[in-house]
Amino acid sequence: MICEKIKLWKDDNEAYMQTYILHNSQEYKTGERRPAVIICPGGAYFKATDRESEPVAMRFATLGYNAFVLKYNTYYGDKIIDRKNPPPGNENTAYPQPLYDIAQAILTIRENAENWLIDTNKIILCGFSAGGHLVSGMGVHWQDELFTAKFNVDSELLRPSALILGYPLTDYLVMREGAKSDNPGAVAFQEIANKIVFGKTNPSDEELMKLSPVNYVSDKTPPTFLWHTADDESVYVSNSLRFATMLTKYKVPYELHIFESGVHGLSLADETTAANEKHVRPDCQVWFDLAATWLKKRLGSN
Amino acid sequence: MICEKIKLWKDDNEAYMQTYILHNSQEYKTGERRPAVIICPGGAYFKATDRESEPVAMRFATLGYNAFVLKYNTYYGDKIIDRKNPPPGNENTAYPQPLYDIAQAILTIRENAENWLIDTNKIILCGFSAGGHLVSGMGVHWQDELFTAKFNVDSELLRPSALILGYPLTDYLVMREGAKSDNPGAVAFQEIANKIVFGKTNPSDEELMKLSPVNYVSDKTPPTFLWHTADDESVYVSNSLRFATMLTKYKVPYELHIFESGVHGLSLADETTAANEKHVRPDCQVWFDLAATWLKKRLGSN
Repeated sequence: MICEKIKLWKDDNEAYMQTYILHNSQEYKTGERRPAVIICPGGAYFKATDRESEPVAMRFATLGYNAFVLKYNTYYGDKIIDRKNPPPGNENTAYPQPLYDIAQAILTIRENAENWLIDTNKIILCGFSAGGHLVSGMGVHWQDELFTAKFNVDSELLRPSALILGYPLTDYLVMREGAKSDNPGAVAFQEIANKIVFGKTNPSDEELMKLSPVNYVSDKTPPTFLWHTADDESVYVSNSLRFATMLTKYKVPYELHIFESGVHGLSLADETTAANEKHVRPDCQVWFDLAATWLKKRLGSN
Repeated sequence: MICEKIKLWKDDNEAYMQTYILHNSQEYKTGERRPAVIICPGGAYFKATDRESEPVAMRFATLGYNAFVLKYNTYYGDKIIDRKNPPPGNENTAYPQPLYDIAQAILTIRENAENWLIDTNKIILCGFSAGGHLVSGMGVHWQDELFTAKFNVDSELLRPSALILGYPLTDYLVMREGAKSDNPGAVAFQEIANKIVFGKTNPSDEELMKLSPVNYVSDKTPPTFLWHTADDESVYVSNSLRFATMLTKYKVPYELHIFESGVHGLSLADETTAANEKHVRPDCQVWFDLAATWLKKRLGSN
């Protein structure tokens, strides 16, 4: 396995990919190209959590994927979250930089496809929570001028083959309404998180909708696998229900699995990603196998 | 196993239950009460199809359930569907008779609980397609005066412990809009089906909404497991998405699984229920195991 940290940009931008490229053995599958998966961990754009990084890459490796964990631009980056030093707001907003990061990741994988033995017809994006916001954002915007203007490349090079979304944030209006009816703590947390993404605590409806991928679903959106828990108290399940409703409207192939119960941020829902016992949910663990079955059906065997 | 045909009403009403009551062996679980499942097959109220009957009962039997297939009142009943002799309409409508049938089934099982060794705290309703319409209807209306007036019993005796809904019809407005945008064949089929349920081909919005369970979901609705295929061309997936949205709103525990593709009426999606090769969908077969896991979590082991 080739495990390298690949810096995405030449300047002092901190975004990078951690690679998990399978052994090009001389004994089997020699020289065969494999599909790629870009894993975008969540973390409310405070950081990209390790809990949704390497263990997820390992599972994709078992399916024969070359995996790339994308540490896109977040407020704290690889530093420890310092609650005494929250984002100040009124400075550079996060967006659209994380979208540029994931686009750059896709292009970097394409540029190195021969060296890393990547099947460039199979580039999957997999995101959790805020990483699901990023992945669904790339899924609905890949064909936009935003990218052609920045990278000066054919849009088709940025088209993801499929999306895997774990408890994704897709609709900031759902988030705001949910927090209001929930509790003051949820509102306060959103206000801090909004500082990072929007540069302000209380964005307007228009600003919230502009960064809500659910509003941009079209027949160009790639096939999508979603999963969520119905009682997620951080990223409400309506984010996935609304996204599925739009996928239905545009006849985009999709699969959706909503489990009855589980805290936000389950990742693999087993011991390999648990920071505490609430993260172990045997009934939800099946999501990865369901995703694997779905990917195999969509993309064929590896 | 006790396999009997139990007539539900004393008069010439044709509704009946087919029982699959597990052996009360003297060697294990002797005298232990088991949960009950009432299975309501679909068939657009033309009939209650055998494809969603005995094989489904067999699967519940493997989980230790006593199963009851409910052949509720339908237009053709146990007769073969005669396409040359379609329902005339303008006669007695089906509703609410099928709801009375399922209520009577629940009460009959309670009355025979000692004899059949039923755990009356665990009475599950499982419906497919039109049977899912019936089951979701019972799920949202069990506490209504409709039943107390008819049966003169405490409503609590009619409360289902949980609902299992396979590609259920829950919203007649979704059905009408979907058929309009689909094709004339779908509209024509719905008009005939409407004759049975509503007594007319083109019910008003108000009439359609009145018989749409999605509009009556409340915090009294039992925990619910739903599954559907996203490209179901007969009962559109929005029936399940909308129902899940309402369950979310009222914080009813639920689980929802939407598979990417599969024709309407998959039943178990394996060879045991297939009338043709389209009914075999290995990727969808997992729904029953997901439902079994969910039931075990909700109701405990049997």
